[in-house]
Amino acid sequence: MKKRSNCPISYLLDIVGDKWSLLIVRDLMFKGKCFYREFLESEEGMATNILADRLKRLEEEKIIVSKPYPENRTRKVYTLTKKGKDLLPILLEIIAWSGTYDRKSGATKEYVHRICNDREKLMAEVLDNLSE
Amino acid sequence: MKKRSNCPISYLLDIVGDKWSLLIVRDLMFKGKCFYREFLESEEGMATNILADRLKRLEEEKIIVSKPYPENRTRKVYTLTKKGKDLLPILLEIIAWSGTYDRKSGATKEYVHRICNDREKLMAEVLDNLSE
Repeated sequence: MKKRSNCPISYLLDIVGDKWSLLIVRDLMFKGKCFYREFLESEEGMATNILADRLKRLEEEKIIVSKPYPENRTRKVYTLTKKGKDLLPILLEIIAWSGTYDRKSGATKEYVHRICNDREKLMAEVLDNLSE
Repeated sequence: MKKRSNCPISYLLDIVGDKWSLLIVRDLMFKGKCFYREFLESEEGMATNILADRLKRLEEEKIIVSKPYPENRTRKVYTLTKKGKDLLPILLEIIAWSGTYDRKSGATKEYVHRICNDREKLMAEVLDNLSE
């Protein structure tokens, strides 16, 4: 990846500054998805060439890692690395912001309340689910 | 703006899911910039047509607001709205993440430490500077 500057905000945008990459991270983090086909089925309707490109870039940037699926070695299983899991606080702040400003947000008031008032426990729950 | 879903992460990406929009918000939030020409001078090198497009979209989405500059009414002064200022926690988490994973990050250890351990005061300082 070619960095545009040493600005930390620019660094993140160089990696995931597009409409799709963080949706893949979301699917891995909150939705228990781990297969190519599962990401493709997300309701935002990612095109297959975009998905392939973003998975490749996320893997190059060590946000995700892929391994052959034991039961069918032509399939890959994608998981978040430590660097990927560490995007969780950013995702939670995004959920809180959108929950406040999008009147039709899928983020419930209870969830936004937990982000603001019970964050450590919420984060531990999300990360515990990942390790199962 | 056409929403792809009611997902709160998708909502933010529908608005600022590109390599540039959050750099404009950064310039307003942390760098005291408020003029078109100032955004253009940022070291990431934004093209003028992209800058014009992103300012328009940020204004449509009520993240920023523009007013004629009193001393030269052909110039506009851009400022963050409440909705725009409320992006601060997201930006701080981004700075902390990049400070951890980009070895050449411009984010100092001291700043990342403050994000993690002195957030309320840090946020108040940033927002105080904005209102001056």
